[in-house]
Amino acid sequence: MVFKSSTFSLLLFLFLFLLSPTKPSLALKHPQKPRKPCKSMSFYFHDVLYNGKNAKNATSAIVAAPAWANTTIMAGQNHFGDLVIFDDPITLTNDFHATPVGRAQGLYFYDKKEVFTAWLGFSFVFNSSEHKGTLNFAGADPLMNKTRDISIIGGTGDFFMARGVATLMTDAFEGEVYFRLRTDIQLYECW
Amino acid sequence: MVFKSSTFSLLLFLFLFLLSPTKPSLALKHPQKPRKPCKSMSFYFHDVLYNGKNAKNATSAIVAAPAWANTTIMAGQNHFGDLVIFDDPITLTNDFHATPVGRAQGLYFYDKKEVFTAWLGFSFVFNSSEHKGTLNFAGADPLMNKTRDISIIGGTGDFFMARGVATLMTDAFEGEVYFRLRTDIQLYECW
Amino acid sequence: MVFKSSTFSLLLFLFLFLLSPTKPSLALKHPQKPRKPCKSMSFYFHDVLYNGKNAKNATSAIVAAPAWANTTIMAGQNHFGDLVIFDDPITLTNDFHATPVGRAQGLYFYDKKEVFTAWLGFSFVFNSSEHKGTLNFAGADPLMNKTRDISIIGGTGDFFMARGVATLMTDAFEGEVYFRLRTDIQLYECW
Repeated sequence: MVFKSSTFSLLLFLFLFLLSPTKPSLALKHPQKPRKPCKSMSFYFHDVLYNGKNAKNATSAIVAAPAWANTTIMAGQNHFGDLVIFDDPITLTNDFHATPVGRAQGLYFYDKKEVFTAWLGFSFVFNSSEHKGTLNFAGADPLMNKTRDISIIGGTGDFFMARGVATLMTDAFEGEVYFRLRTDIQLYECW
Repeated sequence: MVFKSSTFSLLLFLFLFLLSPTKPSLALKHPQKPRKPCKSMSFYFHDVLYNGKNAKNATSAIVAAPAWANTTIMAGQNHFGDLVIFDDPITLTNDFHATPVGRAQGLYFYDKKEVFTAWLGFSFVFNSSEHKGTLNFAGADPLMNKTRDISIIGGTGDFFMARGVATLMTDAFEGEVYFRLRTDIQLYECW
Repeated sequence: MVFKSSTFSLLLFLFLFLLSPTKPSLALKHPQKPRKPCKSMSFYFHDVLYNGKNAKNATSAIVAAPAWANTTIMAGQNHFGDLVIFDDPITLTNDFHATPVGRAQGLYFYDKKEVFTAWLGFSFVFNSSEHKGTLNFAGADPLMNKTRDISIIGGTGDFFMARGVATLMTDAFEGEVYFRLRTDIQLYECW
């Protein structure tokens, strides 16, 4: 074969560059995917738990409890076994009275006797000029930790097929009646 | 360096073509993924809720309710807090008596006081000559809307690792005892 | 245009090779993805159900039941409608007394009258020298089958954005008080 050496060098460079394993989209299997989010958002949601006296304002209620407890008063042993259904307003700031941009709807339950820990399955249902659609969440919430990561397992509408990670932070709480969660959303799969 | 200019042009073209951002699979990060489903299917499932009198026919039952309600009669305020476990037949047509191709198994709960809205976590468990395996679903179901999109978060067997979106439509209902949901499944990730 | 034929051949080869449809990562849509796991792990978790007498040792409790049952004794009809919240130790071997590497936390419920079948939504919360982070699971568990596949729908920490399939096997059980599940985890999406 006859090449001008400079032509050959360029071809070789091109070939190696395009097949380089450090280029994620060209590696044939199990590429290291980029951990840079394709979308980042931050919200607050506000939970007011029914306690027998606040029917008008409550946004959530205990609906299941273990044999040793009931559905009005949180169970002993760090509320182990209490399951709560909620419809909580989502706001852009930490102000409970800000205009909601959607609702956080789903369930949480306390699942450890020795320390406060919960598990969450819920959706953000957006209905604002900025966002229409839903994001679906699932995961463990060891709520005594300053930050907790849960999974964003899917989405619809503006968030069609999204996946990601949400970092939860307890921004405020008042006894067993009110808590406010900051939710930092990072989507890593956008369509 | 010495090139024939035509060779250089071709190399340049090749280089630019292969790295062009309009070619999704070659874009290095956050490519726009094709929204064409890799599989589409449509099913109906049928829910007969236990109401104290229909033990033989019921396919579902309330198992949790808020303090102001019970597990036999649906709660007031749009059933807020009622949690139902179901094992519903899946059919290819809207005929309740058609041979089921599988079962829809999981839970739903009503989670808003002002309007009927539910949240679903369930599986389609297929057992027919056409399909073996499962699809897993999660998401908000604002059931007064004509169509509602929920997430398909995973699958097994024939639907190994599947992801997608399911569009729910209330095809029929009879008071608080029976409803039939049409489920249009679009998978966007197939393995 | 003027080419040395050998240069042209190499260019042609390069062009065809890079665009070949048999190279999965370059196919433009719905590529057949490799079914080779990027990570495989095997664990056991141990569930001790509260039965009214074992408060000290119990790792789980019935918190919801249908109208015809209660939260202390498992319901008839294959426990249909019983919903259990659990915080179970995860071990590397089948020894209940082995040092746990984490906790399986979440819920399961029985959802069929004619045969034992359950549905699971839970997390593995790892806290060992080897693994930090969580894996989130959802799916149907027809527990009379020797093996059952459920979906791994997300992860955090060491398992950031993971997806996969978990195969469950009942490794042991004692009446209605204890069961041990072997969980073979295969991740097919690793980041």
